[in-house]
Amino acid sequence: MPRISDRGNSMPQSPIRKLAPYAEAAKARGTHVYHLNIGQPDIETPPAFFEAIRNMDMKVLEYSPSAGIESVRKKFIQYYASHNIDLNLDQILVTTGGSEALAFAFMSCLDTGDEVIVPEPFYANYNGFSVASGVTIVPLTTRLEDDFDLPEISEFEAVITDRTRAILICNPSNPTGKLYSKEALEKLSEVVKKYNLYLFVDEVYREFVYDGKKHFSALKLKGIEQNVVVIDSVSKRYSACGARIGTIVSYNTEVISTALKFAQARLSPPSVEQIGVEAMIDTPASYFEKVNAEYTSRRDTLDASLRAMPGVVVPEASGAFYMTVRLPVDNAEDFCRWILENFEYNGSTVMMAPAAGFYSTPGLGLDEVRIAYVLNEEALGMAMTCLAEALKAYPGYTLHTLKASQNR
Amino acid sequence: MPRISDRGNSMPQSPIRKLAPYAEAAKARGTHVYHLNIGQPDIETPPAFFEAIRNMDMKVLEYSPSAGIESVRKKFIQYYASHNIDLNLDQILVTTGGSEALAFAFMSCLDTGDEVIVPEPFYANYNGFSVASGVTIVPLTTRLEDDFDLPEISEFEAVITDRTRAILICNPSNPTGKLYSKEALEKLSEVVKKYNLYLFVDEVYREFVYDGKKHFSALKLKGIEQNVVVIDSVSKRYSACGARIGTIVSYNTEVISTALKFAQARLSPPSVEQIGVEAMIDTPASYFEKVNAEYTSRRDTLDASLRAMPGVVVPEASGAFYMTVRLPVDNAEDFCRWILENFEYNGSTVMMAPAAGFYSTPGLGLDEVRIAYVLNEEALGMAMTCLAEALKAYPGYTLHTLKASQNR
Repeated sequence: MPRISDRGNSMPQSPIRKLAPYAEAAKARGTHVYHLNIGQPDIETPPAFFEAIRNMDMKVLEYSPSAGIESVRKKFIQYYASHNIDLNLDQILVTTGGSEALAFAFMSCLDTGDEVIVPEPFYANYNGFSVASGVTIVPLTTRLEDDFDLPEISEFEAVITDRTRAILICNPSNPTGKLYSKEALEKLSEVVKKYNLYLFVDEVYREFVYDGKKHFSALKLKGIEQNVVVIDSVSKRYSACGARIGTIVSYNTEVISTALKFAQARLSPPSVEQIGVEAMIDTPASYFEKVNAEYTSRRDTLDASLRAMPGVVVPEASGAFYMTVRLPVDNAEDFCRWILENFEYNGSTVMMAPAAGFYSTPGLGLDEVRIAYVLNEEALGMAMTCLAEALKAYPGYTLHTLKASQNR
Repeated sequence: MPRISDRGNSMPQSPIRKLAPYAEAAKARGTHVYHLNIGQPDIETPPAFFEAIRNMDMKVLEYSPSAGIESVRKKFIQYYASHNIDLNLDQILVTTGGSEALAFAFMSCLDTGDEVIVPEPFYANYNGFSVASGVTIVPLTTRLEDDFDLPEISEFEAVITDRTRAILICNPSNPTGKLYSKEALEKLSEVVKKYNLYLFVDEVYREFVYDGKKHFSALKLKGIEQNVVVIDSVSKRYSACGARIGTIVSYNTEVISTALKFAQARLSPPSVEQIGVEAMIDTPASYFEKVNAEYTSRRDTLDASLRAMPGVVVPEASGAFYMTVRLPVDNAEDFCRWILENFEYNGSTVMMAPAAGFYSTPGLGLDEVRIAYVLNEEALGMAMTCLAEALKAYPGYTLHTLKASQNR
């Protein structure tokens, strides 16, 4: 039997989906599972998507252009214009999801052995793309105590080597919910400029910003226009994860024309989904206002419930629909498995993502979990009650240990 | 400005789409262009695809599982069973087109610097995937005079090194239309076994076989079950190129479970298109009979027309919907450009793919073109008349030169 490649062997399993068998077993036992483990929102996709598809009049389902259907690209350009970002057709490609946009960015800008600095915890699939492209991720730890704020410039400079080619951030962040401010980005742009790096910014959660804050796109940074590559997707924006339609955007037309060559090799993004997306981009601002109100109140529910649990540490999280929180447990992965395997409350249990999988440095995030607020408030409330009860019952609950040792 | 990666720079431009600007210019002048340059069939997609999509009742367009929707995978298993190929769920993944299936095969089985032997001429995008994955393609030339038959085993052995990990073929072949026989594949399996190689077989044209011949799938080869990885797609089978739904199939479950890790990194294939495909897989055999009859008569028209043109050399082509033929011109790329730029007949011209782009060895295929018979017979007939007239008028027509030199 021929052997599996080294890169195949070193390819990480998705930490988000790793606990899936335990959830399946729980369901098989009749236990309801609240899924707070994945970024699959329950928000309705704008009906315009489905309408456009229903009204398709097509006899032959043809390839679209490799760069995406031109009218779709023009619609995306309108969308960015509404955010005061001016683009031409040679600065944007339609990709098969944000995933492919990131793969194209890595492939076009980085070679095997090149290094990209990524503040951790970070979206775990970045590891997969780094293995696939032979690029080395250099993690820079951010801390829950600092609300996961960006590291100081000096910390970036300390890890820059002659192989460093890029910095990759997600704003607002999956998995922390952190929104990086305009000022933080401007500070970051100095190091980008000084070392002539690429700045890859995953902005797929751009529309989800709370507490009256404003998202500041990296495409608005002055002086590093040729360095910025933005990764984007309709998946979260319109709750259309299954569409697999994203964009790669850069003022650097050489990056885009190089990405186009990778796009040509895979021929085209899905045609039907592009047709749905084209109609959906016209979704009025009121949709986002409603969705943001919904996420805000979910976030508030979650925040309040979690803070009420003894020993749980909750950072500020003003964007996306995730929080990474500290639990009073010795090992969050054990706990996440235990709650699925050995616990239920009122016939239900909760699935969360252990945060260690979002850190690249071994040993970090062991007592943290990522919680996605992708369920309605009633379900969230019940999931939080279940979590609170589970923490009381968990044998590895560190506050018990603490008290026990204090009593000794 | 930061630099483009070496792999980005060495990524080839699609030779199929390279002449596109000249075609656009011709159309802008009001000249009709017969597109025989790309594998985009005009055959109608089975209506079941569009019906299923129209009848979708969905509020949230969710991610599908990374391996593909289970019912879709089961339908594919039924499809293979109807070809006497028995598969389990752990031997097949749904991919975003055959392109992604090939990318997953390369990533899972090959490391940077590994070599894959590919008979040339070959589907040009294989070059793209080799650059993206850092794998070296070792071409093995097949000849028009031999109807592009597979090289002898000794020729394979002559290029095997300690980095050789795989052989990649396309059966029936894009760009030649060659159907490799059961016997040829069995011979090939000996070298695969002897050197413990992977055998990647792109079978996306499996259903298109003419002249009473039968396709023999590599999944039926005995003794190398763990070595064979089949790349497949609905694109050509159901004329659904825009769906971007393919499969990677292997009895080697380690290859499939490794590919699944790459699949998890990109999350999922497009959901809506999978729903359409699931309904489409039930397309009755009569559909393929009708389509095959249509392709056969197109192939016959093309074959007869081309053979009637002085100096054109036409090999046997019993499969897919391509022929690679020799033209009596000094340089086929110049000719393909000239016919678009400087020629028209009855207001029309023809776009073909210069074959040099399908060879990896420089200097080969310079007087060959790939012709895709993806237009109806009337259009094909007119395109052939146009081509015949163009060859007579072309200043680089080598028979003129020959005659001229004979007259001297």
